[in-house]
Parts: sequence; structure tokens; C-alpha cells
Amino acid sequence: MNVVVQKYGGTSVGSLDRIRAVAERVASVRAGGAGVVVVVSAMSGETNRLIGLAKDLASQPAVRELDVLMATGEQASAALLSIALHERGIAARSFLGGQIKIGTDNAHGRARIRNIEIDRLRASLAAGQVAVVAGFQGVDDDGNITTLGRGGSDTSAVAVAAALEADACEILTDVDGVYTTDPRICPGARKLERISYDEMLELASLGAKVLQIRSVEAAKRYQVPVHVRTSFDDSPGTWVVREEAGMEDILVSGVALDRDQAKITVRQVPDKPGLASQLLGPVAHAGIVVDMIIQNSSESGDTTDMTFTVPQGDFERALEMVAKTADAIGAAGVHSDDGVVKVSVVGLGMRSHAGVAAKMFDVLAREGINIQMISTSEIKISVVLDAKYGELAVRVLHRELVEQES
Amino acid sequence: MNVVVQKYGGTSVGSLDRIRAVAERVASVRAGGAGVVVVVSAMSGETNRLIGLAKDLASQPAVRELDVLMATGEQASAALLSIALHERGIAARSFLGGQIKIGTDNAHGRARIRNIEIDRLRASLAAGQVAVVAGFQGVDDDGNITTLGRGGSDTSAVAVAAALEADACEILTDVDGVYTTDPRICPGARKLERISYDEMLELASLGAKVLQIRSVEAAKRYQVPVHVRTSFDDSPGTWVVREEAGMEDILVSGVALDRDQAKITVRQVPDKPGLASQLLGPVAHAGIVVDMIIQNSSESGDTTDMTFTVPQGDFERALEMVAKTADAIGAAGVHSDDGVVKVSVVGLGMRSHAGVAAKMFDVLAREGINIQMISTSEIKISVVLDAKYGELAVRVLHRELVEQES
Repeated sequence: MNVVVQKYGGTSVGSLDRIRAVAERVASVRAGGAGVVVVVSAMSGETNRLIGLAKDLASQPAVRELDVLMATGEQASAALLSIALHERGIAARSFLGGQIKIGTDNAHGRARIRNIEIDRLRASLAAGQVAVVAGFQGVDDDGNITTLGRGGSDTSAVAVAAALEADACEILTDVDGVYTTDPRICPGARKLERISYDEMLELASLGAKVLQIRSVEAAKRYQVPVHVRTSFDDSPGTWVVREEAGMEDILVSGVALDRDQAKITVRQVPDKPGLASQLLGPVAHAGIVVDMIIQNSSESGDTTDMTFTVPQGDFERALEMVAKTADAIGAAGVHSDDGVVKVSVVGLGMRSHAGVAAKMFDVLAREGINIQMISTSEIKISVVLDAKYGELAVRVLHRELVEQES
Repeated sequence: MNVVVQKYGGTSVGSLDRIRAVAERVASVRAGGAGVVVVVSAMSGETNRLIGLAKDLASQPAVRELDVLMATGEQASAALLSIALHERGIAARSFLGGQIKIGTDNAHGRARIRNIEIDRLRASLAAGQVAVVAGFQGVDDDGNITTLGRGGSDTSAVAVAAALEADACEILTDVDGVYTTDPRICPGARKLERISYDEMLELASLGAKVLQIRSVEAAKRYQVPVHVRTSFDDSPGTWVVREEAGMEDILVSGVALDRDQAKITVRQVPDKPGLASQLLGPVAHAGIVVDMIIQNSSESGDTTDMTFTVPQGDFERALEMVAKTADAIGAAGVHSDDGVVKVSVVGLGMRSHAGVAAKMFDVLAREGINIQMISTSEIKISVVLDAKYGELAVRVLHRELVEQES
């Protein structure tokens, strides 16, 4: 039996009317003959409401119990959608994380899926039922409820699709696909028909918040074709797929703006082995994700400057730790700036086409935009800029590298 | 280890402030050295809210899914109370019906508990944790979530107390005990210190909605002492216990008023074997609970009148079925009246003291109250009256049979 996995996000099940609309959509897919597994998020706002209750009771709610609490959101959505399907005469059955044993590690609040026992899902499909799976949740080896972190329902859906060897995993959401850049910033932005896993990974991690990054990793690992599309109409969206012939022909697939950046520079650190570890170890230990890291040796070679970026919410904390270490190891001083953004261009084409970086720097220079940091990967170039130039940079880079090249 | 099971109802966990207060109360019991298992209901209003959502999607929501939906209410309460306990420095752990295998049959919406695997609860208590159990819910042999019906958390608590052989099961609620009658109707009503299971069963089934009737049945079967008391202060409530010496000395323990009654009479039915089954079979099959049933042979002996009562919500449906059958079997006609109430007096003393019934009828006659139906058991006399006399009957019966005799 052909199996389609559809995931509906919080906005798509955000009201009873929306749930009825989802039931109608599922019914039409089912009528086409395919087996359907639906993965649902909590109704929009519900997860935040539940977290609000917990935070009102405790500044640091017990993580095990917070997961028990949050899991009710998806449980309710799954039950309601099943009820709506029944009302349309469609046999349906809800499944919680524990009922189909979406086995995870025990890292509450950010658990990782290890395995899925799909027998019950297969039996449900074989019985002609639509299986409605509560997303975002799993169960550890001891039967404790776990959750997968923000956007975890995407990962649930991809994992279920992989386990069932489904034809596709549709992510139905409130945007109609993946765009070359944010259309609110750049009117020339256009929807991509297809994009490779690797490009999507770079774009997802760069602030194009359409898909949770771990769901893309999982889709890549298990080669699950993902179709990101709107739940509000039938228009096709963007397929996230493995790399195909011709994909490299497009130089730049997308331009991303990440505003959640702050920069810390440690000046004239005596250049010894273990320096980066000394400076960044405490920061990493505190659970702060360090993004770009750049180290330049000085001319004399006996000191070095190190610059890195962290999310804005962790800026103060990171700065405090780094200042302490810098003092201890005899650095000249610490400079910081939370008024920066990161702009990135992503494209498989960069692997085979030289000159993208040069063109990028040229475009920015022509606009008088100073580049503060540069970081590159095989298919991505990121620059850190003064925040005030962020949107301008996106617009000109999109015009010169996406619109002109297509 | 001494173990106390405490059950907190919806009002008692109806707000975050109330949940904090429950955590404080649990902490003080824990400080006394006893192991504590807490069973919680959904926050007040939550179950109705969830049912409202389901009913908006379907007039007859799929029962399996309705249980999945409703179970979220107690799950959230259990998680929130555990979080509040942690915040007070009390180790606590929530348990869902499926996690401690509160095994039930598969009658969704009104499942019956069959067994509880208490190993996890015992381990939790042995580890010094407060075990917070989501009430109202269980799990059938296939791992489907079931619920126990309205007030089911009482039954969860008694079942857990029985399984753990707990010293007592405290039912903490928004009333401070079991009263001789409804204090809103009768200012002379007083709180009972102790009452037997059998008396409580009669009172519970008669509309004194302090304890779910099945919880009292379970308490009786497993001889669990139940303490019904308010969660708002420390005052003692009413102990529901097995019959003790001296209990029979009190003639009447309580007077109950049940307004949820409607009466259907089938006139002049040809008197043949199987008559009651023919008339009431379809009604019972439709899941309607028939309460009082009275059959009088006519003088000639070839026809009979049959009268019975049903809950008001089922009145129209039952009437329709009965009218159809009555027509088919050649009865003279069907009369009905949904303006009736049932008033009952309950007391172990009736077993050994003659004359309670006579006195009851005398008291009602003196007030000019006409009795429409009479039904008796070993420890109870119920009469059906015109609804307008209900409160008056309760007041005079309480005065003459409870206040005067004590």
C-alpha cells in the first residue's frame, strides 16, 4: 500500500474549523487510495499556554513533568482530529508517542528519536484506518513521556515516514513553501520547487524557520522526500529531496537573514595551544551555542584576536564568562556588539562555480556595507554585518545572485 | 511504611493558587513521615471544556477518542502538581493510567478497573517520592486509554488505596463532609462523623453527589476507610467505613432529594410473562438507567399498570421507545410526567426498627403531600412526589426523622 505521511502544524489545527478543514483534506487523500498517517502539533498557542502555567508554578519546572504537561497539547489535537474524521465517516485512530513506542533517549525537552515500533501503525493502516499520531512526543526506555523540542512534530513526521518507508512526508503549514529569501524583506523572493537536504539544512539553521533542522537531518539520513506546503489550499509547495542532476546549475538557492546574533571579540590573547578551548569551554558548558568562530594571528605571531557569535538571549551570560577567562589568561580586552546580523547565501552551485564569494563581497562593497566576519562552508557563505544593513544586504544579494542568475 | 492516599477534586486543583495550596498540604502530610500518593482530577471546568470541543466536532464523538481527549485534563493536573511539589523541594513524580497500568475493561467513558500494577508506585514511595496519579483514567488490554466516567477519580483513589493497602483514602473536595441532608434546603442539616458503606451507597445513588457510587462500592469491597473532607482547611470530615457497633442506633442517617427523575406509566398492559422485559428491554439496551419500577396488577388480573422512572435527560428518548412497544403489545396508553422528584430516607437503623416507613408516610400526609410511587430496600425508603413538594418533604422528614430522633 502506498503510504503518505502528512504533518499539520499548530496553525493548521489552530481552531475547530481548521481541524474540520484538515479532516476534509485527509479524507480526499484517503479517497485517492493511499494509506494516510497524520502527525499533528498542538493547537497554536497551546504549548505556550501550558509552559506559562508551569512557569507560573516554578521558574525552572521539573523537566520530566514539563514533558508530561506539554504532551497533552498534541494528545488533544490527535483526539480531536480523529473525532472530526469519524464524523466524516473516515475510520481513524489516534496514537500517542507511548502507544506506538516512539522510543527516545531520556533528554527531556529535547529528546532524540531512536526507534519506532511500527506494527500498530501498519495494523491500523491495513485495517483501513487513518492513523493520527500525536507529534512532538515520545517515550523513553522506562516509559516516561519525552518531548522533542520546538518544532519536534516535523521530526516525528519524518521519523514515522522513514519507519513506514512512506512515499512522501508532507509538512502542511501556514507558509506555502521554501522561498529564496524572506518575501517580507525582498519582493523578488520566489518559491523554490525543489531544494536539496543540504541546502535546506543550511537555510533552516540560518533562520528560515520553515522546518525544524533535526527533521531535515532525519529526512536526509533516511532519504525521505519532504513536501513543504500550505494547509490552506491545494497549491504545491517545495520538495526537499536528495541532490539531483541539475541542482548545481543554480548558483544560489537562497539568501537568509539571521537577526539573532551577538558578537564577542577577545583582543590580543597570548597565542598558546588550548586557547579556544579555554575561552569557549565554559560557554559551551553553559549550554550556549557558539555559531561563527574566527581567529586571526597578529603580525608578530605572539598574540591573536578571537571573535565569535552567540544568540542574543545568551549574550550577557556569555560575555560575563568570557571576560572572566580573558582576564585570567592575560588578554588585552574584550569587545562586544549585539547590534549585528548574519547574512548567508546558500547553494549547491557554489561547489562547482568559483567566484560566488568574490561577487558577494563586491555587491556588498558597492553598497558601502562593511563586512565584520566571514565564514564559509562548501555550499554557504555567511557574513556578519552591522544590523542596520541586514535587510539592504539581503535585497541586493538576492537581486544580484538569485534574480540575475536565474 | 504507612501510606496515605489523597484525592483532590477539580475545585481543589482549579487554579494555580489552589494547586500551590495542595502542594503545601501534601508537603505537611509528607513531613509527618507517611508515604503519600495523590490522585488528581482535571482542573474544574476542563473536562466540560474538552467535551464541548468534541461535541462541536461531532454530535456523537468517537468514544475511544473522547477518552484520549478527556484524559489530558488529569494528565495536566498531575504534571502541574508535581511541578509545584518540586518547587517546594518535595520529590514527586506523575503517573498516568497507562504508566502504572490501571487496567480496565474497554468500555470507553465508563470503564471499570480490573487491576493495578503497583510496583512502580511502591518503588516511587520507597524512593521517598510523592506519587501523583492522574485520576479518572486507565488503560485497556490493548493499551488504549479509557476513562472511568464522571467522578471516576474517586474510584481511582480508592482502587489505588486498596492496591497499596493504604491506611486511608482521603477524598479532598469542596464540601466538608457528608451531611444528613442538603444544608441549602434544610438549615438543620448536620455533618455526619461516620457513615457505613451501605448507607453511603444509598445516599450517593440518591443524589448526594459527594462520592462517586462506584468508589463507595470499591471501598466497601476492599474495606478501605474513606475520609471525605474539605481541601480548604484542616477540619475533619466524614469517615465512610464498614459497619460498626452502634451504627444501627441511629434510625435515619440521611434524607436525600433526587431531582433528576421523570416518570412513565404504561396503562392496562395485558398481563403476560415477559412483559417487563418487553417494555424495558429496549430502554436498557439504549443505555438508559431505569430507576424505580413498580407493577400493579389490576383487580381483574388480566391487565396490569407498570410505572418506572428514568433520568430527565433520557426522558424523551425513553418515552418514544416505550410508546412504540406499548402500542405493539396492546396497552391502553402511556402517561408520563417529568415534573417529579424522588425523596429517600436512609439508615441502618431501619433494619432493626419497625415503623420508619409508617412514620414517613404519616409525616408527608400531614403536610398534604401525595405519594406517587414507593420503593423500599433494607435500609432505604424512597418516594416519588410532585416536584413542587420536594424541598418541603425533605425539610419535614429531616425534622421528624433525623433532628427529633438524635
